[in-house]
Amino acid sequence: MDPVARVFQGFTAYQRSAALKGAIELDLFSAIAEGNATAEALATRCQASARGVRILCDYLAAVGFLHKTDGRYTLDPESGPLLDRHSPLYVGSAIRFLASPVVMQSFADVAGAVRKGGTVVDAGGATAPEHPMWVDFARAMAPLAGFVAQLLANLLDADAGCPWHVLDIAAGHGLFGITLAARNPRASVVALDWANVLTVAEENARAAGVADRFRTLPGSAFTVDYGRDYDLVLLTNFLHHFDEEACVAVLRKVHAALRPGGRAVILDLHTPRNPTVRRLYRAYSFISPRLAAALGSDPEAYRYLPRSIEAFYDPEALAALLGDAGFMRVRFERLTFGVAAIHVGEA
Amino acid sequence: MDPVARVFQGFTAYQRSAALKGAIELDLFSAIAEGNATAEALATRCQASARGVRILCDYLAAVGFLHKTDGRYTLDPESGPLLDRHSPLYVGSAIRFLASPVVMQSFADVAGAVRKGGTVVDAGGATAPEHPMWVDFARAMAPLAGFVAQLLANLLDADAGCPWHVLDIAAGHGLFGITLAARNPRASVVALDWANVLTVAEENARAAGVADRFRTLPGSAFTVDYGRDYDLVLLTNFLHHFDEEACVAVLRKVHAALRPGGRAVILDLHTPRNPTVRRLYRAYSFISPRLAAALGSDPEAYRYLPRSIEAFYDPEALAALLGDAGFMRVRFERLTFGVAAIHVGEA
Repeated sequence: MDPVARVFQGFTAYQRSAALKGAIELDLFSAIAEGNATAEALATRCQASARGVRILCDYLAAVGFLHKTDGRYTLDPESGPLLDRHSPLYVGSAIRFLASPVVMQSFADVAGAVRKGGTVVDAGGATAPEHPMWVDFARAMAPLAGFVAQLLANLLDADAGCPWHVLDIAAGHGLFGITLAARNPRASVVALDWANVLTVAEENARAAGVADRFRTLPGSAFTVDYGRDYDLVLLTNFLHHFDEEACVAVLRKVHAALRPGGRAVILDLHTPRNPTVRRLYRAYSFISPRLAAALGSDPEAYRYLPRSIEAFYDPEALAALLGDAGFMRVRFERLTFGVAAIHVGEA
Repeated sequence: MDPVARVFQGFTAYQRSAALKGAIELDLFSAIAEGNATAEALATRCQASARGVRILCDYLAAVGFLHKTDGRYTLDPESGPLLDRHSPLYVGSAIRFLASPVVMQSFADVAGAVRKGGTVVDAGGATAPEHPMWVDFARAMAPLAGFVAQLLANLLDADAGCPWHVLDIAAGHGLFGITLAARNPRASVVALDWANVLTVAEENARAAGVADRFRTLPGSAFTVDYGRDYDLVLLTNFLHHFDEEACVAVLRKVHAALRPGGRAVILDLHTPRNPTVRRLYRAYSFISPRLAAALGSDPEAYRYLPRSIEAFYDPEALAALLGDAGFMRVRFERLTFGVAAIHVGEA
């Protein structure tokens, strides 16, 4: 791309997030998937003005999320299934968290954060335990999790029906544990998270018909007593927020809570061979200041901005962390999407 | 790019603007151009923390604005000169306007704007005459204008020293008219803009040593009396904010203010042959809501979100607008950067 255009597109990149957020709030992509093709038809379907719809759709076409031919809009065949609410691959709800005002606030003064070496967002803000932002997170991220949760249940062979006592750490929407319980009638799940976030997980457990085998454990993963004799402990999209020392501390707690032969299941981003994802990983320490605004009742445990995220995402480095925490055998598998992978450590 | 990565990069694109803004505020790119290559050296030079600098630089390297080899950062050879304050091509200051809180506010509720068909920002906000945002705009954009202003002076043959009476409409920083006066000692300039913005133009006129041939005309381009007998009237980066009807209204006023044979000089974005820029143009109606938040004391004159910006950026369509306003001869030339072009209409 022309360097002038690239620089100015960078200066105004926030407008791309804003356009996607607006389109998802209006359910515009789903409306196009349903066959509404003109600005007028979409305006009727989305209860918006035709002029506004045309302007937004023209922008989305300009940046490649739609195509426009003779005044008719169609979804981009590649990204469309991720943005159409009817699709099993729908991830659109994630923007309700990723570009929410509270998360964006963490990026309002990057120069200040770089001067300080950490977030400049008020500690009294989203850092408090039970901050409502994590409830939004649980709701926004749930639609993304269902598909991956099914794959995880396949991988762990949930359908075999072995008796499982499962701990789901930082459960959020709870869908990883809930899906195991739904697929395995002999599984029971303890979901750990802030108490207010757990209300979302409880809703999801009731909806999945597993409420009778679903229990909650409110608190911080760094300080709460996990209990004992778990067959499986799930750490889903959790460790990447922390530095190696904090990860090992949690993994030691996990190891102690497993029965002999029990397994720690770490689900996280991972595709060393995908250059785009590798680039994103290198950027992760920057992206993660949003979390510095959101987590952290225990400043000693929550050390944001991992020192070397590249090393962390190296499967061997993560295996070494599991080894440091006492796990004897470690298995690594790619899961899906080119981004999700799991490490299974056996206690 | 992988569609999942593309969608999530879109969801978090605002972080790219935030990183560039932070780096420019810290003068990080200039510091790297000076030869500071490590996070530690850059931290000393930019009065920041090494950890924060490393995290920000790693992110900027991940998105292509820096390169990193063995812990040493270098500028990207293509975009670097646009971001290094010492370079004559520096455009970094523009982000102080383009990603300023007041401009970004216009994009906080895109769904609401699409429902309504226009901006939802309070009319009492930046829309007021003399809103201080336009002072920021004049200061932020001045460093970008100097180079193009010199090219414009070349094209108009300012050095020939013909007696010129110049009107600079929506002058902002005033540099287009001021450069003509600096290059042509027989030129005098009238700069039209809000009174508070004109204080910036006056500073620049004094700095350029042309204050004795520089006069200000405060007010709105749509309502103020321009005066008469101008040799040149400049409309620089102005018409693209308005629909055809409003453009013709201004061009008629310009025509009436020119002496016979005088010239209207329209400097604006233009490169029909550059696909990137063409795509940006199609997006312009979306990008321009920021202006809907900022201009507009006269709602009848300021009709934001042009109906068909694609038609507007067609050289023949703009020539037709000039024709509608009474101009007999119209000349079109590309200027520089692949984006700036001028139309000259002869009265």
